[in-house]
Amino acid sequence: MAKSFYNKLKIINDPVYGFINVPSELHFDLLQHPYLQRLRRIKQLGLSHYVYPGATHTRFEHVLGAMHLLNSAITELRKKGHQINEEERLAALTAILLHDLGHGPYSHTLEGILLENVNHEEMSVLLMEKINEEFGGRISLAIDIFKNNYSKKFLHKLVSSQLDTDRLDYLKRDSFYSGVTEGGIGTDRIIKMLNVADDELVIEEKGIYSAEQFLVARRIMYWQVYLHKTVIAAEEMLKRAIKRANEEAHKNGVFATPALGYFFDHNLKGIEEVNSGPLYPYTMEAYTKLDDTDIIVSLKEWSNHSDIVLSEISKRLINRNLFHVDISNKPFDEKKISNLKEKVVSKYKISGDDADYFVFSDRIKNKAYSIGKDNQITVLFKNGKTADIAEASDLSNIIALSETVEKYYLCYPKDVV
Amino acid sequence: MAKSFYNKLKIINDPVYGFINVPSELHFDLLQHPYLQRLRRIKQLGLSHYVYPGATHTRFEHVLGAMHLLNSAITELRKKGHQINEEERLAALTAILLHDLGHGPYSHTLEGILLENVNHEEMSVLLMEKINEEFGGRISLAIDIFKNNYSKKFLHKLVSSQLDTDRLDYLKRDSFYSGVTEGGIGTDRIIKMLNVADDELVIEEKGIYSAEQFLVARRIMYWQVYLHKTVIAAEEMLKRAIKRANEEAHKNGVFATPALGYFFDHNLKGIEEVNSGPLYPYTMEAYTKLDDTDIIVSLKEWSNHSDIVLSEISKRLINRNLFHVDISNKPFDEKKISNLKEKVVSKYKISGDDADYFVFSDRIKNKAYSIGKDNQITVLFKNGKTADIAEASDLSNIIALSETVEKYYLCYPKDVV
Amino acid sequence: MAKSFYNKLKIINDPVYGFINVPSELHFDLLQHPYLQRLRRIKQLGLSHYVYPGATHTRFEHVLGAMHLLNSAITELRKKGHQINEEERLAALTAILLHDLGHGPYSHTLEGILLENVNHEEMSVLLMEKINEEFGGRISLAIDIFKNNYSKKFLHKLVSSQLDTDRLDYLKRDSFYSGVTEGGIGTDRIIKMLNVADDELVIEEKGIYSAEQFLVARRIMYWQVYLHKTVIAAEEMLKRAIKRANEEAHKNGVFATPALGYFFDHNLKGIEEVNSGPLYPYTMEAYTKLDDTDIIVSLKEWSNHSDIVLSEISKRLINRNLFHVDISNKPFDEKKISNLKEKVVSKYKISGDDADYFVFSDRIKNKAYSIGKDNQITVLFKNGKTADIAEASDLSNIIALSETVEKYYLCYPKDVV
Amino acid sequence: MAKSFYNKLKIINDPVYGFINVPSELHFDLLQHPYLQRLRRIKQLGLSHYVYPGATHTRFEHVLGAMHLLNSAITELRKKGHQINEEERLAALTAILLHDLGHGPYSHTLEGILLENVNHEEMSVLLMEKINEEFGGRISLAIDIFKNNYSKKFLHKLVSSQLDTDRLDYLKRDSFYSGVTEGGIGTDRIIKMLNVADDELVIEEKGIYSAEQFLVARRIMYWQVYLHKTVIAAEEMLKRAIKRANEEAHKNGVFATPALGYFFDHNLKGIEEVNSGPLYPYTMEAYTKLDDTDIIVSLKEWSNHSDIVLSEISKRLINRNLFHVDISNKPFDEKKISNLKEKVVSKYKISGDDADYFVFSDRIKNKAYSIGKDNQITVLFKNGKTADIAEASDLSNIIALSETVEKYYLCYPKDVV
Repeated sequence: MAKSFYNKLKIINDPVYGFINVPSELHFDLLQHPYLQRLRRIKQLGLSHYVYPGATHTRFEHVLGAMHLLNSAITELRKKGHQINEEERLAALTAILLHDLGHGPYSHTLEGILLENVNHEEMSVLLMEKINEEFGGRISLAIDIFKNNYSKKFLHKLVSSQLDTDRLDYLKRDSFYSGVTEGGIGTDRIIKMLNVADDELVIEEKGIYSAEQFLVARRIMYWQVYLHKTVIAAEEMLKRAIKRANEEAHKNGVFATPALGYFFDHNLKGIEEVNSGPLYPYTMEAYTKLDDTDIIVSLKEWSNHSDIVLSEISKRLINRNLFHVDISNKPFDEKKISNLKEKVVSKYKISGDDADYFVFSDRIKNKAYSIGKDNQITVLFKNGKTADIAEASDLSNIIALSETVEKYYLCYPKDVV
Repeated sequence: MAKSFYNKLKIINDPVYGFINVPSELHFDLLQHPYLQRLRRIKQLGLSHYVYPGATHTRFEHVLGAMHLLNSAITELRKKGHQINEEERLAALTAILLHDLGHGPYSHTLEGILLENVNHEEMSVLLMEKINEEFGGRISLAIDIFKNNYSKKFLHKLVSSQLDTDRLDYLKRDSFYSGVTEGGIGTDRIIKMLNVADDELVIEEKGIYSAEQFLVARRIMYWQVYLHKTVIAAEEMLKRAIKRANEEAHKNGVFATPALGYFFDHNLKGIEEVNSGPLYPYTMEAYTKLDDTDIIVSLKEWSNHSDIVLSEISKRLINRNLFHVDISNKPFDEKKISNLKEKVVSKYKISGDDADYFVFSDRIKNKAYSIGKDNQITVLFKNGKTADIAEASDLSNIIALSETVEKYYLCYPKDVV
Repeated sequence: MAKSFYNKLKIINDPVYGFINVPSELHFDLLQHPYLQRLRRIKQLGLSHYVYPGATHTRFEHVLGAMHLLNSAITELRKKGHQINEEERLAALTAILLHDLGHGPYSHTLEGILLENVNHEEMSVLLMEKINEEFGGRISLAIDIFKNNYSKKFLHKLVSSQLDTDRLDYLKRDSFYSGVTEGGIGTDRIIKMLNVADDELVIEEKGIYSAEQFLVARRIMYWQVYLHKTVIAAEEMLKRAIKRANEEAHKNGVFATPALGYFFDHNLKGIEEVNSGPLYPYTMEAYTKLDDTDIIVSLKEWSNHSDIVLSEISKRLINRNLFHVDISNKPFDEKKISNLKEKVVSKYKISGDDADYFVFSDRIKNKAYSIGKDNQITVLFKNGKTADIAEASDLSNIIALSETVEKYYLCYPKDVV
Repeated sequence: MAKSFYNKLKIINDPVYGFINVPSELHFDLLQHPYLQRLRRIKQLGLSHYVYPGATHTRFEHVLGAMHLLNSAITELRKKGHQINEEERLAALTAILLHDLGHGPYSHTLEGILLENVNHEEMSVLLMEKINEEFGGRISLAIDIFKNNYSKKFLHKLVSSQLDTDRLDYLKRDSFYSGVTEGGIGTDRIIKMLNVADDELVIEEKGIYSAEQFLVARRIMYWQVYLHKTVIAAEEMLKRAIKRANEEAHKNGVFATPALGYFFDHNLKGIEEVNSGPLYPYTMEAYTKLDDTDIIVSLKEWSNHSDIVLSEISKRLINRNLFHVDISNKPFDEKKISNLKEKVVSKYKISGDDADYFVFSDRIKNKAYSIGKDNQITVLFKNGKTADIAEASDLSNIIALSETVEKYYLCYPKDVV
């Protein structure tokens, strides 16, 4: 019995943009799919809410918002005379709506941990293909656009590039929810300035300041939010808790929610093991059952585990009693690190190897803009010529933004000092 | 080793107010307490995010926001010459910070379900008293204020009344996150207009329009968000899933996360059973381990349970495939209801009694303002006289707002029709 | 030489809505017309900026905003299947763009003062007709819609009714610029809920709470902003300054800017004297030269005039040293008034008659909603029936909002007391 | 008869910050002073509202906002242990409140035109000193702070430097009213990060990203708003209209409002002629009577003047029929310019010299940050050391921002081409 689309939900309230229209009945049905509903249970910013309590927003909201922006962008490009037919429009909207299906619990935090050597884009493709089977091939064009196999390359750029609607939404949204207002960007103005030249997505010359501000805002969000030192501590601790629990699972046994337990049982590596072989399609099924809640419930149990490493890290994560973090522009002194480890060994009565769970140091880096890559930001001048934004700007500013910034962090329990 | 407060976190970013100051080292330590950290895992608006995807904010943010507003209110009252000493200020801030400790998973949704005949305020008092023990009696005054046992009654009113900072924050915040902007209120203006007369918290005459708008906004938020028909469907389904799982736990056994399982095992009734007897303090401990994630993980498992009632409701909840809801100003026709139940019995091959899990009807009601109760909103006139706002207004509007609005809903699976 | 529209300004930045599109080349040309540019020099809220310093926004912005909302409303109605052809759409947008052309300096403040018995709508029609001549009849349909002479009555209602896009914009905008956030309304939601039934503009049942909030917000804006007692004092003083200067012009002579002087010279009454007779079209020309700046420049000069009544009021207005205002629910005691007048007579050495310039009392009134008038707000129920919102609501609230609220004010120089 | 401060206006609504408190009775009285009230009649952004219609905000709002931010900054510095006594606090607040008194009509637009070789800061000092006389020396300390004659230099830096509260407010406010949201800055965060080291105002290390974003936002506002090519055209046209009217005043006579006429009559040069000599204090008096409205009323009259140069420019300004502007990174070809002038000579039948009024070209430049000047932005590291932000940053970004960007513009009437 076919329900008419008119009777289905068509408008969704969004605190960032006001209202988001569901573009078609197909998109409505995709939104109802369990794979997409699962994104409601995955926080967009992993553990950033430990620093910015408002940042509890989910991947679900993000993909809706990105779809909304992509729709505006297409409206704009059509106004400028670019041919985008209705099928292409809907397919591009599908591609962005589904582009984050492959994220695991806490978004990027556990990427490559639960499924070694598997990134979330690969999983997104698998899950899109699964949905495509269910939907009788109706999202094939969307998958082509997502994989950059479609002739109109600029559609792919709208979905995935250094100026895609994915970034436009997440910067706007993450700034909104974190309260880091200076990370906000002029999405509306940028979208008005988008154009297409030689099948490339470009930004018109007069949008250059908005694009620069977008890059600066992105860098702020990286250092102020995504790579905030306390967030790093929390996310590194979570990775270590999962790793340790996995080890314990194979030693003395450990509690795990059913969805999480599957991954401890099998320890898969590489997308091939997910996509074929004896565990196909079970791994995909397990993956689509897994979300943030499995991690929290497990951490709560692990807080009482007999293994001090696992219980200590888990308890600290649940109660936000995080390790202390030092940040430096230079690598930390090895002596300082080994000294801290000794104290940890003594305090917790653990082995020297296990001290690595409590004291660890690594490098973080970020660059706001990558020059000259395939996905460069291209500026369109009034005379019809184009150039990489780094060259187009009168300023050496963009070039400065393309330098990689590296920092070093050192985490350890404050109370051993 | 005493860390200086200066080195501790003192400012928290909040998307609604910008920055929130942690008022003292005591409050910092309270914020670090596991009971308060747990509020990070309890959504402020239960399942409203199923209709308003942005509404994933938590009780944790709310209590911070309410504390922030209460602090502003005290600053204002001091300016107007009212004596509030530093101890009283800090105690009132503690009281509001802790006032929601007693909430269970999904806030109000499961209140009275997991612990029969226990409301969240009773639990809040128990947990405050527990913390007070740990803190050597340092929050006694806060508890007195919360329980309205302190001489300056207006401090209690700031924490709990029809114009308290609890409501001021939640309306502002819930409006912000849901995107229902017209439910927003002028918190700043209302706070500027607060005063004290005869130990009563009052609002000055010129704040009367802001207070009226506050009541109207509250009604909008009730009908548009808190009692949105889809939210009712989701929350009623959740109550039924928990009830059914509890029954199954005692019949064929059922998966439950450890924290949830405790409540199925013991089926406690009344605050006395929590606060004394053989299970004291275990119930409190279990309660403070329980949060939204236990419910989600359990629902995901129940989706595959052999009991069709439990699995069907659970699966629908997880995938947001909710029952359809009709709303009416009159009770629904009994015949229509029994007819729907028959269809459900036939479709799901269940007993007539079990049909109550799929087809149910009840009354919802709300009044925006309660006249003449102990916690009336009192207006202070320029001449020093006071009156209930319903009498003070030139308008019959407030009286209209004090009428109870009743509606009836009927839930059922759309696909049986 | 025809410039292409593509090269003309097409997008206008608006702090309230982000971007406003100029819908066509005709609208671009209308925007360039001196009559419309003049609205840049007329403050939307008269002298309200004396209380709310941010409220310096102009009629120009307001008509752009109202046009933007009307365009959204038409998009919505078309989605719901209502036939609105392109000519009708553009004409409706023209009507709203031009609907405020007839406003004089400080919007409503001097309405009926400079041109007795002439209201701004009448002037708007005259000016539209003048433009229509210049544009070769291209805005005839817009004028028909504005004058409610067009068959599709709902188009007129979008331009002028109790739920028109004029009100939707001014409430949103005035709330934004005054900072009275609680006067804000959910324009987006209201527009999504608009529909047409029996050629009537209606609001769908589920929009009823938003419509109620709109009425309450409107009342707040009336009492908090438009009829704020200090605003009343300022605007009444301005009326008196103009009246006195006019009298002086015919006695001892008075400075006036050329545009203002014309009106002192002729003292016209009624729209007929504007629209025909010996002074046609000179009065219209003079009127379209007149704006807020003529008033300010004249007041500055009058501050030094030999007539104490004129100079005192003018100086006070320029320096915002306004008369004191008392507000009461009852008329003020005549004795109190005459007593104040005596003091003024004595202080300023003026006649008893002239005391009326310094001491005056009157009634202000407002009702948030008018039941059953031609322009009632009509609710469309799901079953297709319609009703006046006052009857449609479950609540007696709307009926309460339709009561007229009356207040009395008394103005006088504070320093005579 | 002393009115108590309690009965005076103490809170002002501001759309940007919500509420602004008037800090003391002295500040209340200063706000009432005609010099300050005059700022209500001077637009903050000159003619930028011709491009951004919302940008009609005034210097009055800006100085209130800057005072509000400076107060927050002092609260913050006190929290960090810096001694700022109550007298110093109030004096700093006075200094920022009065810092813009010296602005003339349309803010910077006519600076140096009506009073040659006089800048607005000089006039501000004169007017402050005048007020100081009236107030019996009560604002002497404020003047010392403003002139950087007070021992605690950091107080002056809060009022005037590359990271002063003047800039913090105007960027935030101009971004708000123009709708150029990406020019917005994190004022709250920057203020929280302010500190004092060696009597210097500094920003703490962790505020470095916010400070960078502030500089980038400032550059955006320069190129997108303050130096928008259409704004340049309008402001240059206004300068020319004033210059021409002044010439005409001495030839054939010209209308001028009384306040403006004074400056045509005397053609003063240098602050000495204002501050002493035969015209003291008349020039100051005339200056404080002059505002935006004098310009508009005069332009409206000049539109009908017999001098075609004056009337054409005036009419175009009033009706926003502005000259066309080309922008280039290189100087414009002299031939192109002389060619345009010939066309103008032919079209308007004017002399070759007068063609300069219609066709003109110049250079505009801006740098976002000046390294190493007295008023550099200084970063305070955790180890107590300080450095210029350009050196402190890991990035070459700030150095890039300190490069001067130069552009060339060419204005001419579009219709001669």
